[in-house]
Amino acid sequence: MQNRFNSISPMDFKYYGGDKELFNKLNPYLSENATIKYRLRVEAALARVLARKKVCTKGIADEIERACKKITAEEVFAEEERIRHDLRALVNCIRNRVSVKAKPYVHLTATSFDIRDTAEALRFKEFANDVLIPELVELEKILIKIALKEKDTLQIGRTHGQHAEPITFGFTIAGYVSRLGQRIHKIDWTSSHLKGKFSGAVGAYNASGLFFQNPEEFEKEVLKELGLEPSQSSTQIVEPEAMTDFIHSIISTFGILADLSDDLRHLQRTEIAEISEYFGEKQVGSSTMPHKRNPISFENVKSLWKAFMPRIITVYSDQISEHQRDLTNSASSRFIPEMLAALAVASKRLSKTMEKLHVDKAAMKRNFDLSREAIVAEPLYILLAHHGHPNAHEHVKEMTLKSQQEKIPFSKLINEDESLKPYLKKFTKQQLEIIKNPEKYTGMAAKKAEKIAVFWKKELGC
Amino acid sequence: MQNRFNSISPMDFKYYGGDKELFNKLNPYLSENATIKYRLRVEAALARVLARKKVCTKGIADEIERACKKITAEEVFAEEERIRHDLRALVNCIRNRVSVKAKPYVHLTATSFDIRDTAEALRFKEFANDVLIPELVELEKILIKIALKEKDTLQIGRTHGQHAEPITFGFTIAGYVSRLGQRIHKIDWTSSHLKGKFSGAVGAYNASGLFFQNPEEFEKEVLKELGLEPSQSSTQIVEPEAMTDFIHSIISTFGILADLSDDLRHLQRTEIAEISEYFGEKQVGSSTMPHKRNPISFENVKSLWKAFMPRIITVYSDQISEHQRDLTNSASSRFIPEMLAALAVASKRLSKTMEKLHVDKAAMKRNFDLSREAIVAEPLYILLAHHGHPNAHEHVKEMTLKSQQEKIPFSKLINEDESLKPYLKKFTKQQLEIIKNPEKYTGMAAKKAEKIAVFWKKELGC
Amino acid sequence: MQNRFNSISPMDFKYYGGDKELFNKLNPYLSENATIKYRLRVEAALARVLARKKVCTKGIADEIERACKKITAEEVFAEEERIRHDLRALVNCIRNRVSVKAKPYVHLTATSFDIRDTAEALRFKEFANDVLIPELVELEKILIKIALKEKDTLQIGRTHGQHAEPITFGFTIAGYVSRLGQRIHKIDWTSSHLKGKFSGAVGAYNASGLFFQNPEEFEKEVLKELGLEPSQSSTQIVEPEAMTDFIHSIISTFGILADLSDDLRHLQRTEIAEISEYFGEKQVGSSTMPHKRNPISFENVKSLWKAFMPRIITVYSDQISEHQRDLTNSASSRFIPEMLAALAVASKRLSKTMEKLHVDKAAMKRNFDLSREAIVAEPLYILLAHHGHPNAHEHVKEMTLKSQQEKIPFSKLINEDESLKPYLKKFTKQQLEIIKNPEKYTGMAAKKAEKIAVFWKKELGC
Amino acid sequence: MQNRFNSISPMDFKYYGGDKELFNKLNPYLSENATIKYRLRVEAALARVLARKKVCTKGIADEIERACKKITAEEVFAEEERIRHDLRALVNCIRNRVSVKAKPYVHLTATSFDIRDTAEALRFKEFANDVLIPELVELEKILIKIALKEKDTLQIGRTHGQHAEPITFGFTIAGYVSRLGQRIHKIDWTSSHLKGKFSGAVGAYNASGLFFQNPEEFEKEVLKELGLEPSQSSTQIVEPEAMTDFIHSIISTFGILADLSDDLRHLQRTEIAEISEYFGEKQVGSSTMPHKRNPISFENVKSLWKAFMPRIITVYSDQISEHQRDLTNSASSRFIPEMLAALAVASKRLSKTMEKLHVDKAAMKRNFDLSREAIVAEPLYILLAHHGHPNAHEHVKEMTLKSQQEKIPFSKLINEDESLKPYLKKFTKQQLEIIKNPEKYTGMAAKKAEKIAVFWKKELGC
Repeated sequence: MQNRFNSISPMDFKYYGGDKELFNKLNPYLSENATIKYRLRVEAALARVLARKKVCTKGIADEIERACKKITAEEVFAEEERIRHDLRALVNCIRNRVSVKAKPYVHLTATSFDIRDTAEALRFKEFANDVLIPELVELEKILIKIALKEKDTLQIGRTHGQHAEPITFGFTIAGYVSRLGQRIHKIDWTSSHLKGKFSGAVGAYNASGLFFQNPEEFEKEVLKELGLEPSQSSTQIVEPEAMTDFIHSIISTFGILADLSDDLRHLQRTEIAEISEYFGEKQVGSSTMPHKRNPISFENVKSLWKAFMPRIITVYSDQISEHQRDLTNSASSRFIPEMLAALAVASKRLSKTMEKLHVDKAAMKRNFDLSREAIVAEPLYILLAHHGHPNAHEHVKEMTLKSQQEKIPFSKLINEDESLKPYLKKFTKQQLEIIKNPEKYTGMAAKKAEKIAVFWKKELGC
Repeated sequence: MQNRFNSISPMDFKYYGGDKELFNKLNPYLSENATIKYRLRVEAALARVLARKKVCTKGIADEIERACKKITAEEVFAEEERIRHDLRALVNCIRNRVSVKAKPYVHLTATSFDIRDTAEALRFKEFANDVLIPELVELEKILIKIALKEKDTLQIGRTHGQHAEPITFGFTIAGYVSRLGQRIHKIDWTSSHLKGKFSGAVGAYNASGLFFQNPEEFEKEVLKELGLEPSQSSTQIVEPEAMTDFIHSIISTFGILADLSDDLRHLQRTEIAEISEYFGEKQVGSSTMPHKRNPISFENVKSLWKAFMPRIITVYSDQISEHQRDLTNSASSRFIPEMLAALAVASKRLSKTMEKLHVDKAAMKRNFDLSREAIVAEPLYILLAHHGHPNAHEHVKEMTLKSQQEKIPFSKLINEDESLKPYLKKFTKQQLEIIKNPEKYTGMAAKKAEKIAVFWKKELGC
Repeated sequence: MQNRFNSISPMDFKYYGGDKELFNKLNPYLSENATIKYRLRVEAALARVLARKKVCTKGIADEIERACKKITAEEVFAEEERIRHDLRALVNCIRNRVSVKAKPYVHLTATSFDIRDTAEALRFKEFANDVLIPELVELEKILIKIALKEKDTLQIGRTHGQHAEPITFGFTIAGYVSRLGQRIHKIDWTSSHLKGKFSGAVGAYNASGLFFQNPEEFEKEVLKELGLEPSQSSTQIVEPEAMTDFIHSIISTFGILADLSDDLRHLQRTEIAEISEYFGEKQVGSSTMPHKRNPISFENVKSLWKAFMPRIITVYSDQISEHQRDLTNSASSRFIPEMLAALAVASKRLSKTMEKLHVDKAAMKRNFDLSREAIVAEPLYILLAHHGHPNAHEHVKEMTLKSQQEKIPFSKLINEDESLKPYLKKFTKQQLEIIKNPEKYTGMAAKKAEKIAVFWKKELGC
Repeated sequence: MQNRFNSISPMDFKYYGGDKELFNKLNPYLSENATIKYRLRVEAALARVLARKKVCTKGIADEIERACKKITAEEVFAEEERIRHDLRALVNCIRNRVSVKAKPYVHLTATSFDIRDTAEALRFKEFANDVLIPELVELEKILIKIALKEKDTLQIGRTHGQHAEPITFGFTIAGYVSRLGQRIHKIDWTSSHLKGKFSGAVGAYNASGLFFQNPEEFEKEVLKELGLEPSQSSTQIVEPEAMTDFIHSIISTFGILADLSDDLRHLQRTEIAEISEYFGEKQVGSSTMPHKRNPISFENVKSLWKAFMPRIITVYSDQISEHQRDLTNSASSRFIPEMLAALAVASKRLSKTMEKLHVDKAAMKRNFDLSREAIVAEPLYILLAHHGHPNAHEHVKEMTLKSQQEKIPFSKLINEDESLKPYLKKFTKQQLEIIKNPEKYTGMAAKKAEKIAVFWKKELGC
């Protein structure tokens, strides 16, 4: 019934549905098909361990595994419509495809959420590892390249939207390299700490205890098949905190993408114009204003962040589950894959945009020159203070005001201020140099840009 | 490429995708197809008014209107892929379908957001009116029926999860009738106060001012074609507050559905068991515990609320748009239709569940009886106080404690307490009756249930 | 024990604690003292109506009322520490201050939340009316003044942070006048629709029904004493939706203040510098950069919005209360006064800042001139299209690109483009004038600014 | 001016202001006094390192340090009122207290946020270490005690609010021991990974680079004085992600307290009554219903969670800071201490409540007995399946329905069902035992409770 155009949810039809490459990347992990496939993988792993533990034969386990590989989401949905229980529907589908002899061993000892929670941990972990982290590393790689290339490109640093002290554009980007690099590590950590469970309906191994002396050992073995570890304790569900950690790592990474996009959006303002998004030949900027070149990709990333960031509230709300569990986290947790898809989409879009980013060094210089003289204020006051001026901060502040109000160049004021002379004499050559050429007052910007870029290049092997 | 099973967003594949009736209701307003259709309706209305104002001929307007009726979402998406601007793509599609003579009049004087914001207001208003409100009224109707039917059904009122004073089950439901009824009015008000605009790229009617002496009049006329009114002021976009009002009405309505569901979930607890969801013959309660009858619909509604309520944050965030607008509300606002769909889905599910709700009067009586005697405490202390007992509250509290600790029936304590005698004598017959038969201590519960039910039945004509 | 400096909550010590005037405004409505005072007002009103209904004598009611006027928060807190119930503590304090004869009539028929919910509605309504709305009207007044004064001040309109079409600064501000004016009306509406209740422990008038034939009438009468109306239905608490409406009106108003602050922050950017906050003579801009003049008040308002906007989630969560109520909304709802205080604080700060706002018309002109020529693009393409050019949008877009890439003035390109000649000939005089003098291309900006300003001046009598 | 009773913020006056012990614990870290004290500690550390690096003399550093120890919040506030810059005010206060010779070295090379961000990291880290973690460990200790004491206490496990399979009450609590233990580790990790900075106004060490060849080394040394490490990169502020990690650990811990409280609230329901909060002799349950014993502490903890959880949105919003920083995170971040205080308050309240928790084993047994027979369903169907029954799940489900509808004991149905005989014969003795005595069907509950309790007792040394 559905297709791209009669969908309501914009993620599918709008934000990756038209991008075949992205669609093919996300689909095997995050779609409803994937949900089913992963659950079937867990059922198959269970069967294998049952056989290994001699509860059933190897032949039966193979039969179940073969069935699991054939079942489709469509088939499971049809059965669910009949019996109104998604996991039991899946179990019925397996049972329908195996011999009478094998039927009793399908899903044996398991409760729905042994399968469901384990499958979720598994697919999110694999998605992070196979798709999301590589996507973010791709972005990181591009940022590293810019950081290195522009490490010496003079840019005015801005605080409160006001010109502050000079830095370099490479340094600006390197800050994001550092932050994103660390978040990639965080996602790696949180995704690989997602837990599975095979402890039954209330977490006490009631059912598996009927078959095994050490059902915790059995749980560990099934999960090991899938590369997972068990939740330290569980009820019907795994402890929810590992999932909150994972989503926190996702959302806090998204925040970095949004912050970068926001900065670049503003740097593309007409009056600033230090950078701009690439603008395709056939692209239209505005339906009425043909001259417009808008930072639509940066705006899009910020906007997706606004759409997805608040959803952390849902995840925290789902920490509350009554007793050995209520089902009020069921519908809500189905939206988690969308959050993961959104970060991948935003990351890819940002990569594509950053790759073709136009950097206008001349504009950066022009903007720096606007504040050229005022910039001297900080080193001047610090050095004056250092060399013994009793009231350097106030004095320099007044000079600044005078320079602005009376439109006298700040350098002129410095030269003419007799009260400064005794102190200026004590300045080192390098210190005087900075007072004269404030573009040299970039501190460690270039060095730090390089250091960070090189560190993360090595750390992530990118 | 997409279908129900390779989608990521659960709304489409899971929460109405399998329900043909609901799909057919929501699709014409909320899908991407609908987005395009509504924008085309706005373009056609614009053309009609241009003709009426003699800017173009009636023939040209007709030509444009015919084109608007033929264009598909698919066509527009293909063009958007080429030029990366959704609204310009739509304009191009119209232009491609009209004569050379008509081309210049397509979209004339309009900016993208004249079309987009107006189309959004229009489809949300119509959706509220045609689908959402009727869906909620349907639920209200069922609740009214229960309120009337159960107006005399004794139930213990609960505060803090503790037995408090008696009410009736009809009264319980009537509270929801009242709250939902008022919210239906609120949605009606907020949806019909959504605004359109035709004030151009920065809201100052720059372009339309080239053609009309009174461009505000022109704006009013185009919007009147569509049954809308203009935003009092606008930039590139309408004032965002009307949308926040609308979404607030949606979310606060959702809260009522969640609250009702939560109450009923708890009334279905094994130990309480006053009500239960209907359980289909082929339905499966639990994959491992065949005896389970779970309140899955109530849980589902609560869960959907948890998924959608936090999204109000996105809507409030979108109130902030720099200067005459930035595009950071674009992706985020595309998720609004999903919020509307979710409320419709939840309402329908709750209607279906409430319609078949099993009410167990015997269980309600059994639970009441648990606290039968303690219930007397409130009227007793109030009447004692009224009839002059100097320390009624403390005295009765001590009696209660004694009754509990020493397992003596409260009625026995009353009878044996000599200090109470002088006061009990002053009780009216009706007052004594309540002390003896606390099931009569339901106050106005039945009357109020009826009053509210009848009021809303009439008010909503349902 | 506490004082301004050993407090943890920043609202008290930081955001109005040092402002005596604001402190004196907020304190009588929002402090803990006020909480107690309002509850005592409700108890007194109850006593008066009990006397009027002949349940007690006028003398007793007077005695209770006198006691209510004397009780302090300190006294109630001390009693609460003893018995761990805030409302019962208050009742005990009244009882301790009246004669034995009067004691039984204190709080008679009421439950704690009859008092508490009614007192909250009352103080929020009065706070909105007496403090918050006047504070917002004060801001509105200042905005109206600016809108009128600057209605003709040319400013470039900006979308996506890019220069778009020209407007006037008065028009920019008028948009906020319109939005804020409407929200003031909304707060007025929502605060005056807050409801009280006197329906007892579970909302069924169980206790008051012991005394009155028509306890709803009794409820109405007590509330009328206080200028309130009863909730249509209630449990132990009033229907929560009216409070969500009120808080929504607060938060959506806050969003407008944040949006305005954000715009002005950006207009104060070094490169734009169209406006600036007043900078006191002794004020320090930066601890290290004496030349800095930062938009700290605009930043502060935006920041307070970020702190308070998300709290709507708490209010929506409190819509869910089990059965006839659980107490999980108790602590959370105590934070509502802080939200109200925060909006008042932000509004006052913005008023003070806007009052002294420095508007730099020359800078606005300078920025406009940056895009002077490109601005012509929109009217040019529209008029070309209108006068029959078959492909105006594309053609003008290419001209724009050429002008940018080859640094040829756009006006020159227009003059030299032979293909345009036939169409330019058809332009009216006024149309040609705009193409030549794009500063005239401000549409209705000035008129609309005036219209909106005048409308709200009259509407709010300010 | 302020005191406990004229405050608006409830945290101070209500939630710990009356608790002297808690007040004395929180105040030295979280109050405004503490804010100032910590900043002074950072200024003193800076002076020490300047002396060590020979920028100033040891004598000067000592002079500065002595001044730092004397300054009060009151003094700083007074100066701030004059110059409207909090950090510069603090610097002025130090300068006013040192000799002319020392003045230039106060705050030398630092920017406001070198001090502010470093001081915040320091006090939050120390608060976590000295107060919050010990408070949570105290709670954990009490939970461990209950888990061990009640490890064998039979309780029915509940999913969907429905009776599921049996566990023990110690197992229920052990789940929380596990979750809380892990979160304590998480808070430990995140608080000790909060970072400081001494990289100057835009993060490029511009100012410190005037004095030191290796200003990163200098930064490291100052921070080492305080037990901190530098942010890998910084702008004017430290990278915000470490703070989001810390707050995430706080909020996700709060969720566990809320979940536990919610569970216990429900277990205290009149119909369930398995546990109850201790009820003081003079405590009042309800102002009108003397018999009420309400779970007010559990409700309070849940309510505080609802008040504070949504504030994570503010923290994520503060990840976005324009360029080298805007100040829109300033007011908002001042509310972080309140979040920390709230968790400490909630933890202490829960500790006190859990310590005196009344556990009613008889009630647990009574509730278990309600479902005694149905509980057999799971092991029965699993074992039947295991022993070759072709359709065990369906068959047992039908038996359950029959038992319920026809009120026939389930055990009787088992005995009478001829079709089951061949399979029952294959059951082991232990398996038959569980079918007959379902209270033995608690799986690993007791063992697991003990294992978890012992593990965390050792891990946390409590």
